[in-house]
Amino acid sequence: MKRIRLTIAYDGTNYCGWQIQPGRPTIEASMNEALLELLGCPAKVIGASRTDSGVHALGNVAVFDTESRIPAEKFCYALNSRLPEDIRVLRSEEVAPDWHPRKVKATKHYAYRICNREIPLPQERLYTYWYRYELDLDRMRRAAEALTGEHDFKSFCSPGTDITDTVRTIFSSDIERSGDTVTVSVSGNGFLYNMVRIIVGTLLRVGTGRLEPEDMQVILDAKDRRAAGETAPARGLTLMGIDY
Amino acid sequence: MKRIRLTIAYDGTNYCGWQIQPGRPTIEASMNEALLELLGCPAKVIGASRTDSGVHALGNVAVFDTESRIPAEKFCYALNSRLPEDIRVLRSEEVAPDWHPRKVKATKHYAYRICNREIPLPQERLYTYWYRYELDLDRMRRAAEALTGEHDFKSFCSPGTDITDTVRTIFSSDIERSGDTVTVSVSGNGFLYNMVRIIVGTLLRVGTGRLEPEDMQVILDAKDRRAAGETAPARGLTLMGIDY
Repeated sequence: MKRIRLTIAYDGTNYCGWQIQPGRPTIEASMNEALLELLGCPAKVIGASRTDSGVHALGNVAVFDTESRIPAEKFCYALNSRLPEDIRVLRSEEVAPDWHPRKVKATKHYAYRICNREIPLPQERLYTYWYRYELDLDRMRRAAEALTGEHDFKSFCSPGTDITDTVRTIFSSDIERSGDTVTVSVSGNGFLYNMVRIIVGTLLRVGTGRLEPEDMQVILDAKDRRAAGETAPARGLTLMGIDY
Repeated sequence: MKRIRLTIAYDGTNYCGWQIQPGRPTIEASMNEALLELLGCPAKVIGASRTDSGVHALGNVAVFDTESRIPAEKFCYALNSRLPEDIRVLRSEEVAPDWHPRKVKATKHYAYRICNREIPLPQERLYTYWYRYELDLDRMRRAAEALTGEHDFKSFCSPGTDITDTVRTIFSSDIERSGDTVTVSVSGNGFLYNMVRIIVGTLLRVGTGRLEPEDMQVILDAKDRRAAGETAPARGLTLMGIDY
């Protein structure tokens, strides 16, 4: 038995997120179906990040166990020929049999893309959030700085999860404009339910002057979801990669 | 009666091209439907470029005539609220009543994007052609240079049109790589049926060594479609804009 690690990219538009839900299309179900077809026997992936409905990935990670004699680095090609066009395995490699993608320290990198122009571009619509109002990126950067480091991010977590420890560390954040696209990049040791999207929703309030950069500390201290801004739409969010 | 000019962007993925075809989704039909809904009476757009099935645009141009008192520059907003999300009017303005988008001298700018990596990226699949083989851009540039200027492009025209004059002028061409994306940009005074896509299909042969840059002149001289390379897929092509 060997354990294979996969690096997976997907367009989340047509999926109800990573995690299997009966009767609904999910990335996890598509991966398991492709493995079943390839191996001739059921295999189940364990994913690193259970991305939400509509969220994209360029580098999610998953493992599965197999006794197949297919060389580890060939699995990406074998799986891609059995996967739909909106999911691609970018890399496959053997890891230790006890290596678990959620139980190893990791840095997750997310990018949230905003199409910041008066009229949206059709070709950007699936991978950005169209937000037409003028944004002051310096204000947004100052606000994002307040989130760097170890904090209790309870105010930036949607209710409905049973997670009790809401302390996480954000290692870095970056906000850049390229043409009409504003990208908010955040790296951290883990993210709560909707955390990046709530951070972005709150930063947009700062960028348009409805909140001050200094308010971020107040929002953190409140430990109350209602203190933060809106949850920005899923389509703008991409899990860029995970460093182990 | 006044004539309004529209600058239109669209994701061509779900359309059978610009031109109306009974029972099939087209950009022209969608535009006319939105105008009918807005104006309460039929109006017909005249398009500058009848892009093919699956081809995208960032700046196609069309006109229509109306007696509406809506200010010319407001039509873009009024139409966008009645158009599907994959078509956006970026600009609207009044032009002279006899201004015709196909009867005025113009420079058309096309870009063809190639996703040039071993495994395709799902997020690029709708707007690039995945071509995994290594490309020598210098060779491709030398080949493209042979096409610059006024030539009979009969070899780069798909059969099935009734056009007899196949002489066109290419003003400039450019081939650039940015990460894994290779973009072939071409500007000219007009393009024959499938011309940009056949040029790209032929340049790919040069880029992989199956043709020499010097062969382009031979292909031009042949005035025979069979002398050129494949027609590259529609999804990589975008009409970037039209300068009048």
